[in-house]
Parts: sequence; structure tokens; C-alpha cells
Amino acid sequence: MTRGRIAAAGSALLCLAIGAFTAPPAVAAACARQARFAVVVHGGEISQQTPENGRLEAMRAALAAARTQLASGASSLDVVETMVRGFEDSGRFNAGRGAIANADAMVETDASIMDGRTLNAGAVASMLHVKNPVHAARLVMDAGRHVLLVGDRGEAYVKSLGAEMVPESYFIKSISAQPEHGTVGAVALDRCGDIAAATSTGGYDAKIPGRVGDSPIVGAGVYADDAVGGFSATGHGEYFIRLSVAKDVADRMRYAHQPLAAAMKADIHERLGAYKDADGALIGIDKNGNVAMDWNAVGMFRGYATDIEAPVVAEYAGPTSSRPR
Amino acid sequence: MTRGRIAAAGSALLCLAIGAFTAPPAVAAACARQARFAVVVHGGEISQQTPENGRLEAMRAALAAARTQLASGASSLDVVETMVRGFEDSGRFNAGRGAIANADAMVETDASIMDGRTLNAGAVASMLHVKNPVHAARLVMDAGRHVLLVGDRGEAYVKSLGAEMVPESYFIKSISAQPEHGTVGAVALDRCGDIAAATSTGGYDAKIPGRVGDSPIVGAGVYADDAVGGFSATGHGEYFIRLSVAKDVADRMRYAHQPLAAAMKADIHERLGAYKDADGALIGIDKNGNVAMDWNAVGMFRGYATDIEAPVVAEYAGPTSSRPR
Repeated sequence: MTRGRIAAAGSALLCLAIGAFTAPPAVAAACARQARFAVVVHGGEISQQTPENGRLEAMRAALAAARTQLASGASSLDVVETMVRGFEDSGRFNAGRGAIANADAMVETDASIMDGRTLNAGAVASMLHVKNPVHAARLVMDAGRHVLLVGDRGEAYVKSLGAEMVPESYFIKSISAQPEHGTVGAVALDRCGDIAAATSTGGYDAKIPGRVGDSPIVGAGVYADDAVGGFSATGHGEYFIRLSVAKDVADRMRYAHQPLAAAMKADIHERLGAYKDADGALIGIDKNGNVAMDWNAVGMFRGYATDIEAPVVAEYAGPTSSRPR
Repeated sequence: MTRGRIAAAGSALLCLAIGAFTAPPAVAAACARQARFAVVVHGGEISQQTPENGRLEAMRAALAAARTQLASGASSLDVVETMVRGFEDSGRFNAGRGAIANADAMVETDASIMDGRTLNAGAVASMLHVKNPVHAARLVMDAGRHVLLVGDRGEAYVKSLGAEMVPESYFIKSISAQPEHGTVGAVALDRCGDIAAATSTGGYDAKIPGRVGDSPIVGAGVYADDAVGGFSATGHGEYFIRLSVAKDVADRMRYAHQPLAAAMKADIHERLGAYKDADGALIGIDKNGNVAMDWNAVGMFRGYATDIEAPVVAEYAGPTSSRPR
């Protein structure tokens, strides 16, 4: 079924030569307008030698599943949420179950999701008992009235929307022997041409309770607009907020007509690079399905897949973009 | 002293003909690089017939004081904080003492401040006991490490920074007999050429507890960059977040070279205008000291002053920009 669709769209040979599709799950084939699709993920920027901790294999498996789903017509919104939920549940990343503890030894999580077709968005911040912050963000978005819910009062609201709550003991609290402030994120372009992005984090190690970084902030740590592209960030969140990094990159593309990789480079290396402690990284997909990944520190746990490329994952050296379209 | 400075800068006649300066307070004359300065405020957009409630006079008095201070070399950052604090204390606006109650009959306040010289920013959201949310935002910014603090845990942090706490009984909770979701904000350009912006709100009437709108979000309800301009928003906050309104306007100016008023018009009338319930308003100052004020609803409580124009305030018809530079 997947083969048939991709073949019909004219890129069958390349796809079959590279990909290794298994039978797609039963996903409503809502999206089949174009052959092109793309998906990119990050599992946190690397500001020092960070243990790999099974992240590469987790990303590869998530990308393989996402590729199959996108080929079958799944929406980018469902795909990015599913991927980030998986990372949250894995305990291998600083998000969800693996989120690191704040200065009071509590886990406080933040997450966001954005739909580039409608510019709808949902986000949660400073959650203590939400099992899947990215799903809570999706519930907020789908409820339609609000975008951002914070703190214990906001948590009561997302619980009322059906978000699953867990006791504090659910969280591992320390996924490695050293401080880190990785984050997870995913961006996808589906076969409808719709782009979605999601980001989820535990913030940074021993953060002040109540501190919120860029992950739940539209235009800072997450952004998606079908007319331009989609983005998810990781790094020193305060700088990403101050510089509105995701929106700045999108606007370089929209208003200054810069290509994806150049726009990302300007923000990650020039604007953030102007501050000595503003380490960070960004993943993005443009409306044509080009993928780019950039960082200004040691590396980034990252990976991507497209209709014409099987999943690729890396942490230090390695690809920074997909094959040009 | 003020006269001397303005005369030395060559715009004395116009200034003296229009303005009515009283002796400036003892402010360190840190800023005297240029004659030009400007300040603009809003006291909420008007989506229906909203009681004037003394807001016009409060804005006029604040503008007169700010004009004197700016002429004397005060920094834009101090001026916008002072003005917004005054509005918070007045009980006449939906901010600080006058902030409206949420669905649980509690007052939850949000505020932000941004320094266009450094792109430093501070913000607080979902505060229950902070007397002056904009000052709490300033304390967060000045502390240097964080940008956004939320909820009860965030409130504990701003208290530790010295923010004054008040009991819930301090808040009036209902400033008019009808729902409204006005907000206050101020933007200023000082004689150093530095631009600052601040925004403060109680959100909208009977909001879900924990809901945060655009006021404390950099790039949505507040933004300042000396290289471009400064902005403060009011209106249906969720749309301002989704569309990153303040940053979008700034980027139209920076990357598409649109003038201030045209850039604001595009966002307020075209982008927000595409949604039937996305009422909103924006004030802005560009790097040359031009002021613009725009809205897509019935009106906006607003006012401005510059080195060459005495304070002007309005609610419905009336000025939408300063005299062109």
C-alpha cells in the first residue's frame, strides 16, 4: 500500500532502493496530496561529553515508525506528538519520565505542540504530575480556547482535559551522572503539505522552581507554519526566548527569503553566538521538505528521514541536512 | 536644564511651543546622546463600550511625568517600568491592583519587561500575591539568570528577589460592571537611543486558572530591540501567541524593511483579522522615534508624547501615530 502510493507519486525507485518499509499500521490515509514528506528529531544538544544512553537507537526506531506512518498518510501533528511521547516514556531523554530534577529535587516539565496548517498551538509549563507533557499540550490545543497553561492551577486544568497523572515517584530524576539540559523535539512535513512541531523538556539541572525556558514558548522553542517551515529548539532556553529564535528563523525565510539552512545558521551561530554561554541547537524542515539541523556547541542528538532517505541518526559529526530537493 | 538640552539639540522652538515642562526630578542624566525621545502607552483595547474609568487622565499624567523624565535623561527601561507600576497601583486598569478575577475568583497576574539595548527580558505569569508584577519582571531580568517565572513556585522566587507581596484582599477584582480584557503597556525610546517595552495584565475575565496569555511572552505581547523598535500588545492573547505578533511586526521592519505603521497594520488587520474573534491592539515605537497605535476592535485606551509633542490621549477616534520625523 505504501509502495503503491509512493510509486504512484513517481519516486518509487529511489524510495525502494533506500528505504526498508514494513507494512504500515492502520492509519487513515488523510494525506496523499504529495509524495514528499520529511521528519526530523532531536534528543538534546550536547554541550559536553554526554552519555549516549540509548538515545540514538530510540531516535532511529522512532524515525522508522514515523516514516512508515507518514508514507501511509498520517498527519504531521499526530506523528510529532507520537514521537515525542515515545521519547518522554523512554526515560532516556530529559523529558517526561527521564526529566531532570529542579533545585528542590522535583521534576517540573514543559512542552508544546504547534500545527502549521492552522497556527493552532498548545503548551504546558511547570507541570509536576503529567505523564506526557506533549500530550497535555495537544489536549490544550485541541480544546481550542487556550494556548498556554502553567503551574499547579494549569495542571488541574489539563487533568480535567484527560491528561494522565502520575505520582512523583514515576520520574527517574537523574538520567546521567552529570548535569545536562537536553530536550526532545520533532518536526514533520506530511503528504498533505502540513508541518507540525513539538518540543518537551525537564528544563535544566537544578533549575529554580517555577523557571520556564523556551520549550513551551511559541516562536522561541517551537514554531510551525505551513507557508514557511517548522522548528524545535534545545539549549540555553533563556536566550532562545530573548532572541525569539524559532520565529526569527521563520521570518528570515519568509521576509528576507533566506533558505532554511542559512536562516538557521544566522540564528544559531551569529545571534546566539554573540553570547558566550548561549549554547543551543535547532532542527527545521522547510515547506519543500528540506531538513536542517544546526548547533553551536559540541553536537546534538539528532536524526531525520524523508520519503527518499531512510533514517539517519548522529550525535557529533555527521549529517546537518537532508539530501537537497 | 531640560530646556537647555533640548535647545542644544536644535528642536527648542517646537518643543517649547507645545510642551509645558515642569522642572524635572533628580534623574541621573545618563542619556543625552540625542534630542529625540518618545513614549507611548495603552490601557487596554476596547472591544465594546468600556467605561473610561479615569484611564485617560491616568495615562495623561503618566505621559507628562515620563516626558519630563526622558527629557532629563532617564532610561527607557526605568520609564516604562515606572509608568506600568503606576497603572498597576491605580486600580483603574486590568493590571496589578485592578486586575480582574479568574474563574475561581482569584486574581492571577502576568507581566513582562524587555530592554532593547541588550535584549534582556524578565517576565512573570500566574502570580497571586505580587503587588507589582512589572517590577517582579524587572527583578527577574536584573537577576540575570532567568527570563520567565510562573505559578506559585515562580512567585516564591520573585519574593526571594524582593518583590513586594500583598494579601488577596489587596486586589479590587472587579473594575467595571462588565467583562473586559484590557491590559496595560508602555514603550519608550530614550535619549541614549535605547528602546524598552513593558506589559502587565490580569488576563481576561473569568479565565481558567493557570491560563497565560501573551503579556509575559517575549515576541507575542512584548518586544524591544534598539535596532528595530519596541512593542506592547493587548487583546485576545492566544492569537498574539500563535501569531507571535510583536516579533512578526519587528521582523517585517527588520527583514522586509516595512515602516512601523504598515508593519503593525499587516499584523493587526490582516493576520489577526483573518480570525473573527482575534480582537487586539498594539503600540509601537521605531528606532527613529516614530510612534504608532493600531487596533482592530472599537478602540484602544492610548496616548503618547515625544520631545516635540506634548501628551495626547484618546480612546476611540483620534491619533494613531505621532507627527512623522
